[in-house]
Amino acid sequence: MSKSRYANTPEPPYYSVIFASQRTAKENGYSEMADLLDQLAEKQPGYLGAEFSRDTSGFGITVSYWKDLESIARWKAEATHLQAQKLGKSDWYEGFELRIAKVERAYNFRAPSGNE
Amino acid sequence: MSKSRYANTPEPPYYSVIFASQRTAKENGYSEMADLLDQLAEKQPGYLGAEFSRDTSGFGITVSYWKDLESIARWKAEATHLQAQKLGKSDWYEGFELRIAKVERAYNFRAPSGNE
Repeated sequence: MSKSRYANTPEPPYYSVIFASQRTAKENGYSEMADLLDQLAEKQPGYLGAEFSRDTSGFGITVSYWKDLESIARWKAEATHLQAQKLGKSDWYEGFELRIAKVERAYNFRAPSGNE
Repeated sequence: MSKSRYANTPEPPYYSVIFASQRTAKENGYSEMADLLDQLAEKQPGYLGAEFSRDTSGFGITVSYWKDLESIARWKAEATHLQAQKLGKSDWYEGFELRIAKVERAYNFRAPSGNE
């Protein structure tokens, strides 16, 4: 069984960063940076997981989950992440919307015969 | 210019419903229902918009935005939506995670030469 695409979050409350973005056609190290940021995020204090999807038009949504606003602020200021934010605006994204939201309720469903 | 993929939300605070899901291979009216629900949601009181992406593996994230928890509760109980929720569990989804989160902060970016 492959790694779950769902974030294994605790009981609310916790925080989410909802990042909706349209990619440009420029690669310029995007995939490598995305992999590196995934690894770095997992080591950040307060990181709870993330969910990600991008369609064939390049429109994608990433939702990352965090213990509190302080964790999010620390991640925003992380050195490699700052570099990525700069390249995101200059090269990788035509645009994005970023929202910080406090998760208050959560529930899930798995089909009886489902596989992930 | 095609319709924006971003939700044109007001200043926070407002609410979000983060729905991460893995589709089955079953169609059984899924696309038609998705279109119908889009139309119905837009008529719901308190609906502020939605963003959506699904990748080629069938993993997708939809985030819908709402004025308040009452608007979300009304939409959850809407007749056609109730029918869709039932079919979602029986036919369309291997699994999903649904989170309700209060958006506290938001910002965006558009590249100077960007097009949507």
